[in-house]
Amino acid sequence: MAGSTLGEVFRLTTFGESHGKAIGCILDGCPAGLSLSEADIQPYLDRRRPGVQAYTTARRESDTVSILSGVFEGRTTGTPIALILQNEDQRSRDYGNIADTYRPGHADMTYDAKYGFRDYRGGGRSSGRETAARVAGGAVALTFLAKLGISVSAHVVSIGGVPAGTEEAILKEAAASCDSLGGIIECRAAGLPAGLGEPVFDKLDADLAKAILSIGAVKGIEFGEGFRAASMKGSENNDGFCLQEGRIMPVSNHAGGILGGISDGADLVFRAAVKPTPSIARLQKTVTCDGRGIDLEIRGRHDTCIVPRAVVVMEAMTGLVLADHVLRRMGSTMDGILRYYGI
Amino acid sequence: MAGSTLGEVFRLTTFGESHGKAIGCILDGCPAGLSLSEADIQPYLDRRRPGVQAYTTARRESDTVSILSGVFEGRTTGTPIALILQNEDQRSRDYGNIADTYRPGHADMTYDAKYGFRDYRGGGRSSGRETAARVAGGAVALTFLAKLGISVSAHVVSIGGVPAGTEEAILKEAAASCDSLGGIIECRAAGLPAGLGEPVFDKLDADLAKAILSIGAVKGIEFGEGFRAASMKGSENNDGFCLQEGRIMPVSNHAGGILGGISDGADLVFRAAVKPTPSIARLQKTVTCDGRGIDLEIRGRHDTCIVPRAVVVMEAMTGLVLADHVLRRMGSTMDGILRYYGI
Amino acid sequence: MAGSTLGEVFRLTTFGESHGKAIGCILDGCPAGLSLSEADIQPYLDRRRPGVQAYTTARRESDTVSILSGVFEGRTTGTPIALILQNEDQRSRDYGNIADTYRPGHADMTYDAKYGFRDYRGGGRSSGRETAARVAGGAVALTFLAKLGISVSAHVVSIGGVPAGTEEAILKEAAASCDSLGGIIECRAAGLPAGLGEPVFDKLDADLAKAILSIGAVKGIEFGEGFRAASMKGSENNDGFCLQEGRIMPVSNHAGGILGGISDGADLVFRAAVKPTPSIARLQKTVTCDGRGIDLEIRGRHDTCIVPRAVVVMEAMTGLVLADHVLRRMGSTMDGILRYYGI
Amino acid sequence: MAGSTLGEVFRLTTFGESHGKAIGCILDGCPAGLSLSEADIQPYLDRRRPGVQAYTTARRESDTVSILSGVFEGRTTGTPIALILQNEDQRSRDYGNIADTYRPGHADMTYDAKYGFRDYRGGGRSSGRETAARVAGGAVALTFLAKLGISVSAHVVSIGGVPAGTEEAILKEAAASCDSLGGIIECRAAGLPAGLGEPVFDKLDADLAKAILSIGAVKGIEFGEGFRAASMKGSENNDGFCLQEGRIMPVSNHAGGILGGISDGADLVFRAAVKPTPSIARLQKTVTCDGRGIDLEIRGRHDTCIVPRAVVVMEAMTGLVLADHVLRRMGSTMDGILRYYGI
Repeated sequence: MAGSTLGEVFRLTTFGESHGKAIGCILDGCPAGLSLSEADIQPYLDRRRPGVQAYTTARRESDTVSILSGVFEGRTTGTPIALILQNEDQRSRDYGNIADTYRPGHADMTYDAKYGFRDYRGGGRSSGRETAARVAGGAVALTFLAKLGISVSAHVVSIGGVPAGTEEAILKEAAASCDSLGGIIECRAAGLPAGLGEPVFDKLDADLAKAILSIGAVKGIEFGEGFRAASMKGSENNDGFCLQEGRIMPVSNHAGGILGGISDGADLVFRAAVKPTPSIARLQKTVTCDGRGIDLEIRGRHDTCIVPRAVVVMEAMTGLVLADHVLRRMGSTMDGILRYYGI
Repeated sequence: MAGSTLGEVFRLTTFGESHGKAIGCILDGCPAGLSLSEADIQPYLDRRRPGVQAYTTARRESDTVSILSGVFEGRTTGTPIALILQNEDQRSRDYGNIADTYRPGHADMTYDAKYGFRDYRGGGRSSGRETAARVAGGAVALTFLAKLGISVSAHVVSIGGVPAGTEEAILKEAAASCDSLGGIIECRAAGLPAGLGEPVFDKLDADLAKAILSIGAVKGIEFGEGFRAASMKGSENNDGFCLQEGRIMPVSNHAGGILGGISDGADLVFRAAVKPTPSIARLQKTVTCDGRGIDLEIRGRHDTCIVPRAVVVMEAMTGLVLADHVLRRMGSTMDGILRYYGI
Repeated sequence: MAGSTLGEVFRLTTFGESHGKAIGCILDGCPAGLSLSEADIQPYLDRRRPGVQAYTTARRESDTVSILSGVFEGRTTGTPIALILQNEDQRSRDYGNIADTYRPGHADMTYDAKYGFRDYRGGGRSSGRETAARVAGGAVALTFLAKLGISVSAHVVSIGGVPAGTEEAILKEAAASCDSLGGIIECRAAGLPAGLGEPVFDKLDADLAKAILSIGAVKGIEFGEGFRAASMKGSENNDGFCLQEGRIMPVSNHAGGILGGISDGADLVFRAAVKPTPSIARLQKTVTCDGRGIDLEIRGRHDTCIVPRAVVVMEAMTGLVLADHVLRRMGSTMDGILRYYGI
Repeated sequence: MAGSTLGEVFRLTTFGESHGKAIGCILDGCPAGLSLSEADIQPYLDRRRPGVQAYTTARRESDTVSILSGVFEGRTTGTPIALILQNEDQRSRDYGNIADTYRPGHADMTYDAKYGFRDYRGGGRSSGRETAARVAGGAVALTFLAKLGISVSAHVVSIGGVPAGTEEAILKEAAASCDSLGGIIECRAAGLPAGLGEPVFDKLDADLAKAILSIGAVKGIEFGEGFRAASMKGSENNDGFCLQEGRIMPVSNHAGGILGGISDGADLVFRAAVKPTPSIARLQKTVTCDGRGIDLEIRGRHDTCIVPRAVVVMEAMTGLVLADHVLRRMGSTMDGILRYYGI
């Protein structure tokens, strides 16, 4: 059953395989009247692009986005916004090895288990390339949020267990030994109004957790104190409230900006764990599709560490969830509805 | 916008406040022909019930479930199953203090921000009592999964940072100091077929993350190695494949049973962090609804630690997501469809 | 797969069989702050109740609604509103005949084809009784709409081909010959703002058509000129526009208040065809569940004509769709969003 | 809120405006392993294409479809299928007249009411051109259904009140007088298994009604006897059952193949009313966007009658709904699930 759509009101549906003709998305539910052009989206795609940062794959894609619909005379019309990125780098090559083999840590085996066969070229739909469509759609969400004074910003906390800024040596070593590294990314959103998030299943943190865990390489998420809260006392972890410039605000932010699944006016804060890239040139033991044991050596263009490229993907996914909840909130109260309709 | 429904095919919708007339749920999409009676559900509710375990609230609710629809002559009919639990313990008392105050760590302030006012009696909809409806619905999911040979089982890993089994002292101390403790729960599912989970947004781990984070007290989740994976190398974290009794299986389980968002046939493994109960009898600094600073002392029936009671809630939520994905998978391939329709 | 939920933002989920313990619904997404009590809902249920009108079944159900959640101190809280009606008239009787037979015009055979077996008591889930839950939920929608100045009102146009008001003879005759009659109902909504409805699939008329056709006995729907428009010329069917009290309005209403799936400010007008009740005491040829031909005579309490009772059901379904679209519209434009959030 | 997606399991999301860069769709949830190429889709688009039939617009679009994703080595992979059609005929012209005016019978006024402004070029999103994306997606659905032995076929019943086959004179006259005509289309599906459709809201006829009414020009739908049933007696309208070649089947088909919202094994039959094209070259009275009365004369390429072109659109929409319900049915019974999973 279909799983390529995210969001209830601000809805993103993506398509595309690593080595197909194109990847892209349809963003439905974006409000009319937002100034938008390719120039608002392209910078986000450029941050995700391979080959820009050290220790990332040398695959070259210009990743130039084109808006096919939903924008007229520089503004969104309220109708679906289709975004497309052509796949340029489809150089013909021998995929025989990948086609017949289940690469460790990849989704080759599970796609076969589910669908009976798979588009094996470059990982097909399970390729990291799929995240470009998310970034394109997320860029529109972030553009929308900016108009409401909401900003989202993520950064690398650590790579391979080493604090960001001091990871050069560990990356060099991993690259030299044909290995790969993961890391931790922290994401923050500022300017959120209190009151976003829907009890009981569509809590703001629940929806964010889903969106972030839907990024292929992510293996965990925590909000505010997160796993540390499990070792704290209630008296340490609780955030009392105070009056700040006329608004009631938490005095501390152990909760990460969410209480009972609803934003509390403080900054949203969460961290996500990114696993080391499974594609490594080292020899690995695994099996072919028909179960024969082999020693696999994956050649080609790989990232030693995708964590830096995942930062903008995390911002994009966060933007999509927040935009959705900004719109979902609008029907929450009679007062707001009567005011909206001028009654 | 409505957020009280979980699942696409196997869908749970819950209702109810802590001190209203009743709580309950409608489970829509449960297949016809499943043997089901209250006796299948009640044991799960009994495990969640307050007052059963030490250091949990003394509030007494028999939590007796009643099936109102969807079952005929001992079997599900395919139509919605409505489950109801009367709220017995609604003793009249003075809520004045809670009504006017924003309790630290609670959703009082955020519900007011969202809805303009709230049912303050016992926390209303944001009360832990809401999870009883999840457990009732989840019990049906687990009963269904058992017929397919799938079992779900969770346990406490640690409380207040101390390994389960050795937490007696720390609990005693927390209770004595009118404080509370959180902990970590691990959940496993065995017997899962490979192939469950939907690319790209409705990955199995993404949907589980949402379901688990939608439990009020949960602040983090990790699958397999989880946050540890961020410090590992690809060569350490990758699970190679081998042939086991005719099936291709991962040789290790760093991934926690999910690759590319799809189950790989190994056990599903995840851990969740539960924050310390925010209701503590200690004096806390906070504000009233109109922003006046006060010293709050919350009296009444509280859990020193809800972690043991959350175990069955986590099993229930896991069961709901797995049941949904078991059904969602059925239309994945032409072969399966033609076979199903006898063509 | 689950089909018991209607609506995207204002969402109704129903449950219950004709002769089970109770029927009811959960209404999720109703805004907070709406004055609501059982007294707002009961009058709608009373209009649907059997035995009130001539030529309707003598089955006696008080159909007393009880609000279980979502209302506090006389106002909705924004959380799910659960409504329940106990089934009182479950007098034990012999269903053997119905249990083994496929009644013509009923869903006995199709439920068996789908689910393998069925709750045959009184038609189970496919009973007209199921509509009581719709009316209960719809009453809340209509109460909500009234606050916005939107009113919904349906009436019988004709019964058995005879204009309403002159149907006494034809009803008498049908009753005497143990037969039944259908009819046509017209529904109107006034006070709708222009701009409700979502291109392209969730058009206002499309969603209404679904809601109305989901009523068991309805076999057709038409908006404005409807089927007559198929014989008209464009120059006859087009509604020109004019300025009326400062608002641009259609000068005529051939369209029934909807253009391109969006309300145009004129009254919404549609008609629906209700088939004659399939339960008739006359001898009918059909088969038993195992395919043996029999002459069936259905005894018991039947309506000669359910059309008058269906009027309030149609109002309820219309109210649910309109309430949903009133809320869905709120995120349509940047201007509206910025105004809502006070930016 | 987003309304451009149809279907629960077999889901179509469309995009595109009449004079934008391209139109197209994403079809998510199509099972893996279906043989598919552009050659399966193109014939359906060719049937819809303008300029093929007499009395249709002379606008020339080759409407060549391109598959961007979801198909590998001639078979669907289970991942989203993106289909695109470039808009070729975007000749620059003066839209000034349309931009400032509310054309009678068109959605100009309602789009402005909803979104504040609109892409006025050729009707933008509300153009009949939008249906090309539906036809492309529907063609995949029909290709899928054919593998299950299900065929869908529609035809024109009447035009301008005159039976199909004898409409030449009336069309000539309408064209000569710069006017337009509507008509009635009948659609049938054969080979449907009994058991498709979901109680209570997602009935097969309810979902079909929504899908068909979502086509811009459709103003009514009726199943089986439809509006005639309102004048019939129960004894006339009921379909008895009999045993036919070992299957229990209705002996007649007044119901149109659906009982209680579920297919009964007989042919599905419904009719839809199509209004006369609103674009006519005749002088019409209406207003400009700022409310000034004008005499409007719409020049350009128009269809005198779009009914023949709507036939394939109706087949496409029917195919989409049926494909969705074929897949939705698969989780209905324990037996079917256990058999599917080989237990």
